[in-house]
Amino acid sequence: MRAIVISSPGGPDVLEWREVPDPVPARGEVVIEITASAVNRADLLQRQGLYPPPPGASEIPGMECSGVITEVGEGVDTLTVGDEVTALLAGGGYAEKVAVPWQQVMPAPTSLAESAALPEVACTVWANVFMAARLRKGETLLVHGGASGIGTMAIQLGKAFGSRVIVTAGSEAKLERCLALGADRGINYREEDFSQALKDDRPDVILDIMGAKYLQPNVAVLAHGGRLAIIGMQGGTKGELDIAALLRKRGTVMASALRSRTPDEKGAICRGVADSVWPLVSAGAISPVVHAEIPMEHAAEAHRMLEAGDHIGKILLVG
Amino acid sequence: MRAIVISSPGGPDVLEWREVPDPVPARGEVVIEITASAVNRADLLQRQGLYPPPPGASEIPGMECSGVITEVGEGVDTLTVGDEVTALLAGGGYAEKVAVPWQQVMPAPTSLAESAALPEVACTVWANVFMAARLRKGETLLVHGGASGIGTMAIQLGKAFGSRVIVTAGSEAKLERCLALGADRGINYREEDFSQALKDDRPDVILDIMGAKYLQPNVAVLAHGGRLAIIGMQGGTKGELDIAALLRKRGTVMASALRSRTPDEKGAICRGVADSVWPLVSAGAISPVVHAEIPMEHAAEAHRMLEAGDHIGKILLVG
Repeated sequence: MRAIVISSPGGPDVLEWREVPDPVPARGEVVIEITASAVNRADLLQRQGLYPPPPGASEIPGMECSGVITEVGEGVDTLTVGDEVTALLAGGGYAEKVAVPWQQVMPAPTSLAESAALPEVACTVWANVFMAARLRKGETLLVHGGASGIGTMAIQLGKAFGSRVIVTAGSEAKLERCLALGADRGINYREEDFSQALKDDRPDVILDIMGAKYLQPNVAVLAHGGRLAIIGMQGGTKGELDIAALLRKRGTVMASALRSRTPDEKGAICRGVADSVWPLVSAGAISPVVHAEIPMEHAAEAHRMLEAGDHIGKILLVG
Repeated sequence: MRAIVISSPGGPDVLEWREVPDPVPARGEVVIEITASAVNRADLLQRQGLYPPPPGASEIPGMECSGVITEVGEGVDTLTVGDEVTALLAGGGYAEKVAVPWQQVMPAPTSLAESAALPEVACTVWANVFMAARLRKGETLLVHGGASGIGTMAIQLGKAFGSRVIVTAGSEAKLERCLALGADRGINYREEDFSQALKDDRPDVILDIMGAKYLQPNVAVLAHGGRLAIIGMQGGTKGELDIAALLRKRGTVMASALRSRTPDEKGAICRGVADSVWPLVSAGAISPVVHAEIPMEHAAEAHRMLEAGDHIGKILLVG
């Protein structure tokens, strides 16, 4: 098959479309013929040599895909050749085929191409906002980077489950799109300090991608009993925690990544998503937000687009 | 009635035994004639003027007591004059009588005097280790300050619910007592760095009283998926959080205090304690650990004893 290979750590041009060996399904795995994949911020770090794949994972980038099952390994009894699916991957999505543990495979909830926009964002929001931070109906959710792929899913899921949703974003165009997706309030972080702006509108749950830079203001603005879920560190990895403030408001700070979890842990998230999120997608209540579809052999162009940061939603790689 | 009054912020000698007005039960409250109360570290801060009581709470110190109900306010239908009880208080325990919301009252699970040693430690451990951090059977619990009142309860409850329990303490005598209470392993923090010692024996849950000073080593030693519950800040209030380390291990940092919670929030904790902990106390599987019983009018002596830090378990004030 052909796949994108990182020829050496570096800029987008190190991504090369090459002939590589076909994947072979291990026990408990299936092989998917890929219809589409999508780019994630972690792929940019992996390309630069800063985020090696977890042990045992493919060296090929790509943490999600959609497609059709072409082979079923031993010990898999819930999936069949021909199933149209979408999957969360530890790697290997920028390719014509990928082998993946059966636990990480879900049915495709909408068209096969658009379904590739969903696994990472739906699983990340579900695992963090709903499973870990336990957002409840009537609570307020603050989403940093509301126009990102994860942001656009967090807005829609927060609203679908009865929460008030506030977003931050860096341009009026992005904020408008967030409001159109259902957000109740938008804050342009280039013009306003969100922690000041929200002093009388405190979030119960914050989904954060900035890490250190936002740790102090996130803890300061959190409501009593609030939960801060950190899933990215675009603003640094070490920050000062005001424990007294956290204790006064009985707050929680949690941090997590999807990729390093075991197949069984990922499977528990995928089951929750398939049961609770996919019906909303199939009914049209939640839509994948796709910024662009780029041929997979031009993955470098997709990386440049993601690095520029002007996109809204997901950038797909299509076969 | 008579009660301990803080004549002005300062050392133990500002605690004066004086005649004060009797408490009057508001709607939803009962009055308890106090058999015994107990001293808590927060009382030392309150005496020094560093920890004012929450709005509406008594200015008299004392966050727990045992005794007999002598009056029942309007709107209380589950408690009766003559009931032998123990209660979590927002203040007012160093007195002959106290008024308290019915939600914070529990039956006395053992002798009335010894029952005063239980509300704060049982509710703190239950709320943090079991309700918030969700310690599961087979997991490992690390208790800092294992010989404290809270520590001695955490050891016993951790073991009763099927966990492995590790403690830190500052002397061999304290460690021996912790092991006698059931702890599986003890670390003398004056001789050993706990985060080095536990590199191959990582805790799933940590109950911490040090705050800033232990934030880095606590996060470093936590197991994958681990939860750090901070309930004290004896080592400072602001510390550096290594978000990358927390994210890699999918960890959680939570901080909380009991005192500032609403009566309904305290009530939910008290119901859990009465249902899940009191039967173990009544059966003798868990015992209050009492270091000394001191006449209430000599509260200053009890404060000096707590400040010296050589005690093991609770220091009671008896009427």
